[in-house]
Amino acid sequence: MSLVIGSIALDTIANRHGRRERLVGGSTPYFAYAASLFEKPKIIGVIGEDFPGEILREMEEKGMDTRGILRERGKTFFWEGAYSEDFHSRETITTELNVFESFRPTLPEGYQEERNVFLANISPSLQRDVLDQLGKDRFIVMDTMNLWINTARKDLEEVIGRVNGFILNDEEASGITGCRYVMDAAEALKKRGPDFIIIKKGEHGSLLLTNQGFILLPAFPKREVVDPTGAGDSYAGALMGYLQEAGEISPLSLKRAMVYGTIVSSFTLEDFGLERLRRLTRQEVEERRNLYLEMLSL
Amino acid sequence: MSLVIGSIALDTIANRHGRRERLVGGSTPYFAYAASLFEKPKIIGVIGEDFPGEILREMEEKGMDTRGILRERGKTFFWEGAYSEDFHSRETITTELNVFESFRPTLPEGYQEERNVFLANISPSLQRDVLDQLGKDRFIVMDTMNLWINTARKDLEEVIGRVNGFILNDEEASGITGCRYVMDAAEALKKRGPDFIIIKKGEHGSLLLTNQGFILLPAFPKREVVDPTGAGDSYAGALMGYLQEAGEISPLSLKRAMVYGTIVSSFTLEDFGLERLRRLTRQEVEERRNLYLEMLSL
Repeated sequence: MSLVIGSIALDTIANRHGRRERLVGGSTPYFAYAASLFEKPKIIGVIGEDFPGEILREMEEKGMDTRGILRERGKTFFWEGAYSEDFHSRETITTELNVFESFRPTLPEGYQEERNVFLANISPSLQRDVLDQLGKDRFIVMDTMNLWINTARKDLEEVIGRVNGFILNDEEASGITGCRYVMDAAEALKKRGPDFIIIKKGEHGSLLLTNQGFILLPAFPKREVVDPTGAGDSYAGALMGYLQEAGEISPLSLKRAMVYGTIVSSFTLEDFGLERLRRLTRQEVEERRNLYLEMLSL
Repeated sequence: MSLVIGSIALDTIANRHGRRERLVGGSTPYFAYAASLFEKPKIIGVIGEDFPGEILREMEEKGMDTRGILRERGKTFFWEGAYSEDFHSRETITTELNVFESFRPTLPEGYQEERNVFLANISPSLQRDVLDQLGKDRFIVMDTMNLWINTARKDLEEVIGRVNGFILNDEEASGITGCRYVMDAAEALKKRGPDFIIIKKGEHGSLLLTNQGFILLPAFPKREVVDPTGAGDSYAGALMGYLQEAGEISPLSLKRAMVYGTIVSSFTLEDFGLERLRRLTRQEVEERRNLYLEMLSL
């Protein structure tokens, strides 16, 4: 099963479709809900006393392993943001670290041996703490965000040098490398050590670079966006979930995993927060995947 | 056969790979060289006394019908431009209309009956002159450029309302519609009348909108660009050339035509001006197309 470590949050989100308060968010829940369509991901994280028990129970019902989620005294990490009218940018209004401030990830017994590990977006020093606890021969994929590029560059570079795969968005890829073009950015990142780089380009699809070269895939065509929060994390969750299900890492399985990332993230956009993922079924994913394959049947 | 009407020019191009003087360019030659890989396009345009006879002879050898190219006293339309270091923008240094200034397109005997017509990038009023000379039941596709969006908006809108297809790049689509997102721009353009809209997104691929919905295709992955001039016109030439060869217009043939546009334009970038197209063979196109189909074999 995949092991995922990252942030668990309560998010207040405002955009042109309205405002939703204290929705469950953070990189890890988006990842885990998406991955749970394919496997039973193990979650490492921390929540406060205000975290809704209903969601924890639902996660368990969906097969996620929540034994690695610590519940601490105090409040859950809180983020409030507002999107621009056209969703092209977003402004952070509030960030309260709360219980996340003193979080040091510790892997429960047996977790060290999970082969597939995803280091979702948290500080590079916490990502490194996890790396130091893992046994050898893991398949480790990481994400990051702009904040760490600016504030923890050295730690970030160290972690990039220790992972098998790096999945990030186009802005982050440009931010780290200084390259305007995504293919240039991917090559520059790959030279830092990972076996593969995946860059998510939103409406423009995504890109894979391995030793075998580049693979470019388009987005699933979808105009209506209700809330883009978590789309990237659910792309990663579906990708890692499918790789776990497929049982092998190869250029072909990575490509197919990207298709699942593309499809699942296209659903995430359809409602606020986790809402669409909470009611998403594997059958819906397969139906939309068939439309996508038909679009690319040339 | 396809009929193409547009500019024929001599271009001086400077970029980080060097500077080339008075290369044959303009929308029509790029279109026609690309189309001639599939069919024998008929060209309407005007050149001056300084146009290289070697290129005219080569066009004929490649099966292009040049009887519609008028040779006038004076100089050929001249353009000089310089690209930024990263090719993201270009600056026009000189534009001399020369013989193009008084050009009024007249279709030679028999040309009125060509079914497939491409109105390459020239002023919308000249595009309309051609439309007025055509018989009924033509299949007409148009291109445009930012200049006309700003200076001839009313004529441009009239022509858009009279064509079957509109193929343009993402900047132009945003310029005409005011939409930031290409899918929104495509929907706004389609409402103006055309049966289909194709938007070229450079490194991000291209998009088709028909009554059956959207098709998104990625670019052919290619990092090295020697000169992007004419890539869009050769995309259109390969698209129209393939449609002529296929003998039918359908969502499937349009999609396959986009693949040829994608492949042929990826060659155009490999050398200055027309140089790569001049020596490009159908076999090279098919070989690269097979790599593209393999990339999208999921």
